[in-house]
Amino acid sequence: MATATKRKSQKVTTADIPRVGPGTPAGKWFRRYWLVVGTVHELHDIPQAVKVLGEELVLFRDNAGQIGLLGEHCPHRGTSLEYGDIEDGGLRCPYHGWLFDVHGRCLEMPAEPKDSKFCQKVKHTSYPVRESGGLIFAYMGPDQANPPPLPQYAPLLDRGGQRQVEPVRHAEYNWFNFFENSADPAHVCILHRHAGYGQQSWGDHFFSYTDMPHVEFVEMDYGMKVVMTKPGPRPGTEFVDEMSLALPSIVQVGDTEFVHAKMDAAALINQGSRCEHWMFVTPKDDDHFMLFTVDNYLGPVTNFFEKLKEMRAKETPIEEVKPYDKRKYMPYKGNVRKEDIMTQGTQGLLGERSEQLGVSDRGVIKFRKIVLDAIETAIAGGTPKGMVVSKNANAVVHLDTQVGVRQNN
Amino acid sequence: MATATKRKSQKVTTADIPRVGPGTPAGKWFRRYWLVVGTVHELHDIPQAVKVLGEELVLFRDNAGQIGLLGEHCPHRGTSLEYGDIEDGGLRCPYHGWLFDVHGRCLEMPAEPKDSKFCQKVKHTSYPVRESGGLIFAYMGPDQANPPPLPQYAPLLDRGGQRQVEPVRHAEYNWFNFFENSADPAHVCILHRHAGYGQQSWGDHFFSYTDMPHVEFVEMDYGMKVVMTKPGPRPGTEFVDEMSLALPSIVQVGDTEFVHAKMDAAALINQGSRCEHWMFVTPKDDDHFMLFTVDNYLGPVTNFFEKLKEMRAKETPIEEVKPYDKRKYMPYKGNVRKEDIMTQGTQGLLGERSEQLGVSDRGVIKFRKIVLDAIETAIAGGTPKGMVVSKNANAVVHLDTQVGVRQNN
Amino acid sequence: MATATKRKSQKVTTADIPRVGPGTPAGKWFRRYWLVVGTVHELHDIPQAVKVLGEELVLFRDNAGQIGLLGEHCPHRGTSLEYGDIEDGGLRCPYHGWLFDVHGRCLEMPAEPKDSKFCQKVKHTSYPVRESGGLIFAYMGPDQANPPPLPQYAPLLDRGGQRQVEPVRHAEYNWFNFFENSADPAHVCILHRHAGYGQQSWGDHFFSYTDMPHVEFVEMDYGMKVVMTKPGPRPGTEFVDEMSLALPSIVQVGDTEFVHAKMDAAALINQGSRCEHWMFVTPKDDDHFMLFTVDNYLGPVTNFFEKLKEMRAKETPIEEVKPYDKRKYMPYKGNVRKEDIMTQGTQGLLGERSEQLGVSDRGVIKFRKIVLDAIETAIAGGTPKGMVVSKNANAVVHLDTQVGVRQNN
Repeated sequence: MATATKRKSQKVTTADIPRVGPGTPAGKWFRRYWLVVGTVHELHDIPQAVKVLGEELVLFRDNAGQIGLLGEHCPHRGTSLEYGDIEDGGLRCPYHGWLFDVHGRCLEMPAEPKDSKFCQKVKHTSYPVRESGGLIFAYMGPDQANPPPLPQYAPLLDRGGQRQVEPVRHAEYNWFNFFENSADPAHVCILHRHAGYGQQSWGDHFFSYTDMPHVEFVEMDYGMKVVMTKPGPRPGTEFVDEMSLALPSIVQVGDTEFVHAKMDAAALINQGSRCEHWMFVTPKDDDHFMLFTVDNYLGPVTNFFEKLKEMRAKETPIEEVKPYDKRKYMPYKGNVRKEDIMTQGTQGLLGERSEQLGVSDRGVIKFRKIVLDAIETAIAGGTPKGMVVSKNANAVVHLDTQVGVRQNN
Repeated sequence: MATATKRKSQKVTTADIPRVGPGTPAGKWFRRYWLVVGTVHELHDIPQAVKVLGEELVLFRDNAGQIGLLGEHCPHRGTSLEYGDIEDGGLRCPYHGWLFDVHGRCLEMPAEPKDSKFCQKVKHTSYPVRESGGLIFAYMGPDQANPPPLPQYAPLLDRGGQRQVEPVRHAEYNWFNFFENSADPAHVCILHRHAGYGQQSWGDHFFSYTDMPHVEFVEMDYGMKVVMTKPGPRPGTEFVDEMSLALPSIVQVGDTEFVHAKMDAAALINQGSRCEHWMFVTPKDDDHFMLFTVDNYLGPVTNFFEKLKEMRAKETPIEEVKPYDKRKYMPYKGNVRKEDIMTQGTQGLLGERSEQLGVSDRGVIKFRKIVLDAIETAIAGGTPKGMVVSKNANAVVHLDTQVGVRQNN
Repeated sequence: MATATKRKSQKVTTADIPRVGPGTPAGKWFRRYWLVVGTVHELHDIPQAVKVLGEELVLFRDNAGQIGLLGEHCPHRGTSLEYGDIEDGGLRCPYHGWLFDVHGRCLEMPAEPKDSKFCQKVKHTSYPVRESGGLIFAYMGPDQANPPPLPQYAPLLDRGGQRQVEPVRHAEYNWFNFFENSADPAHVCILHRHAGYGQQSWGDHFFSYTDMPHVEFVEMDYGMKVVMTKPGPRPGTEFVDEMSLALPSIVQVGDTEFVHAKMDAAALINQGSRCEHWMFVTPKDDDHFMLFTVDNYLGPVTNFFEKLKEMRAKETPIEEVKPYDKRKYMPYKGNVRKEDIMTQGTQGLLGERSEQLGVSDRGVIKFRKIVLDAIETAIAGGTPKGMVVSKNANAVVHLDTQVGVRQNN
């Protein structure tokens, strides 16, 4: 990953962070990274319309197995390539048969004269695409002919464990409401107190509403790390739970094994969690995003994800919804994901909503500064902090997410 | 009620009347009065999101029984308090647990340091609230610490009769289309001719399409009174039916007992109707309003409102809707309320629609002038005409609504 | 039809073509022609709201049988006349009973004083209307008192054949995407290759994807003719298929008898198709249009349209829609009309979408110029090309649509 090169020239504010359309400051910044645009499992033998950073695109796998990401609308007369035919080495527009390969090159124009060279002049919008561990990444930034290497994200590599890629989740609010939520561990003890965090066997009520863990926020070369600690089971030890936020929009949570899979923490806590839980956030536009979740488990339990699935299925909202209760998000209490959607989905847009921030928001405040700094660097032409590989392209990218017992610092 | 203090300085036009958002002329005017924002019967043990004059608010009753009206979005990070928990003397935001009492004071911030004074600095948007006769009133005007007294509206007081508060009705058009409809008695003989007004026993076809009553419009200190008369049953007498419009948005109709309850008018007409029928109009925004209806019956009939309900149930639209008839509001003829919704709901916004007004619109013209005058007075800092109590706060507020036979004037 | 009078003064661009609201260049141009606004068969005994060129109107047939087209909103206070009563020689507003005849004259105002002359001063928006062959035409242009004669469109006249008027079709995209599609015959061989054009007996694979017909585009006094040819069955002959586009928005297609009715082309091809297939496009606004289709058959087959209907019913999409395929327009392949709706409905607005045009778009390019020229002429006050009758009002209007075998030119 790159250490940020500092060449600032333009002032941006927190109100710029949520807006990622073409030409916006955050949009320029976001386009410097590889972004997840789909999952291998969900890309079938038909084109898939996908909106990314405000751009209407279409994802497809050609009949040679290559994946392409093109502009959704045919450059000829605008018809949607979502309805195109995958054949003959590319995607063919249904209207007049223009055929594009995964690089946006036009291969055929059936209605043009046989000797026409027009085809060679047409280059359709296309973005480089890579597959890694079941995810499909695209690079929408400058110098498309020479995109940076795709980072070797640890949970996507084959390292002898079990991996799970969830189907994409679609959310109808701004991506940053979701992302910065992880810079705000206080909400775990409060919002999620109904979701049984306090009932997990590990950490002895680590996330207690009345006795919250100590928290520190550490700037990292990839973004920021949230370190939560409590006194450990033996003198000189502490329980620790780390979450990481990597720019532009990756969240790593370390405690899935204990919190959701309900593994026997008593026996395991000393060795720490063996499950990496990564979430890749991709803005569709300023009011919608996609969430791609990958878990990689390196422990000895067989069928780990079947067990996890069983446990998650029990995390249904526990509330009774009364007959007169017509509120949109009901019920939500008792399910971490629904709790997050409700709170984040009603916040409104950062920069438009009013806010009053306190000491417990220092993680959010610090993280916004880190993001703003990265945006300023990017629009000044520098290399922003985060998941931009500039040196060792083969280095495996880990994020700090220790969960377990460790010796006191 | 206040006699208007005249201190005009700003010119407003009829196009300003319908628009009531914060900062608009009519919005400033409207905020000088107590407004109905809910009914006691419909306020359950969960928060209730309510939009009033373009502001997103949340109504709730705390666990000590006090009703509060707060800004919907938490001042901390914007999450909707519609999903808050009613507990511990206030409403607690689900995201980080900030607790607000009915006065908007922040009582707790669970994630802030124990010795933090931040809580004391936060004052959330809140409006004074009062209950009266099953309705919940709020004051959203200036000098919130010293709101004017809530008027003692006659039908809301316990005066030994029977009272009915209907569930709130929600309408999807501008509030003023509804309100000024009562300044326009001609529509009763025309629009409502299908609804059986002419079949009522009293008044001998008082609202005849071909022989309409004589009408006068009288400016009152509360707004305007519509007086409809016809020759009475004996020499020297006349039938009279009065409606009143009180600023900012109350309508009183006097003939419910005869028209809808179908009481034996022949026996009763000489003593006049004993049922007050008040409608309180509260704009949600410029395209939506709430309608709160209260009836107070002071006659001897037991179970009066059960009888009224039975009779109203028979007022279903009588039209046959043909298979090819896909019009949105069909059927509507034969039900006064549906007839009103169709005509008012398709008018468009005053000031945007074209109009050509005649002699029969003189009530509407006069009433718009009264409203404009009140708006100008309010924005000049004076006390606008209508339901602002400035002198005797304990005086019972009656509106003129005589219906029956009286000696000729 | 008029030969265009050239008096240009204002520059318009292709981006102006799709926009037809009041006051726009294309809107002024469109208003110079009679437009189809409904079908006789679908105009029942209730008013019919209809939006035309961005104007909200209401169509009705009075109880003397005359058809009127009035502004939808009553000029009095704006209520929708869609809910008016058809009675007493006109359409009566439900709110206050104003009665309008088909000419927009106000006949009654029941609430005005008996001696009022106000009624005579009110003239409601109304447009001249004519019936022809089951269609209802309106003229929304200048000099409404003296509209041009309605053209005597051949398929609408009683000429001893069989006629079919289809129910109106409503589409949710810009009218010009549909209209200019007929200036683009290449799409027939490509988009509609799935719809069995190549399987018709006539023309021996006339519309072959791999061997497309020769095409010429000929400017006509009514607009443009598309002439497609291929070598005929005998030396010195050629197969020909003509389509015509008449301004402002009529399409004539000649091959319905062979393509869709699957008549025995082998036996008939020498005499040519005997079925005229006309489509009248009427914009509702810039994102919606109505399509009125009339067929006139002059051949000897009895019950021709029953046979045609049977054949069309078989043209259902042939695609299997897979369980994961949630695309909006699926299935579409195999049905010419669905294929058109999908491609045209996803193009976006001309002037807003990107385009790269080739040799095979020369028909579209030429036709846009013809339309622009007509718009410029109209807004300069001249008589635009197309269906404006200025000389012989009784002349039958034919469009060139020969389909069959002819001697080589």
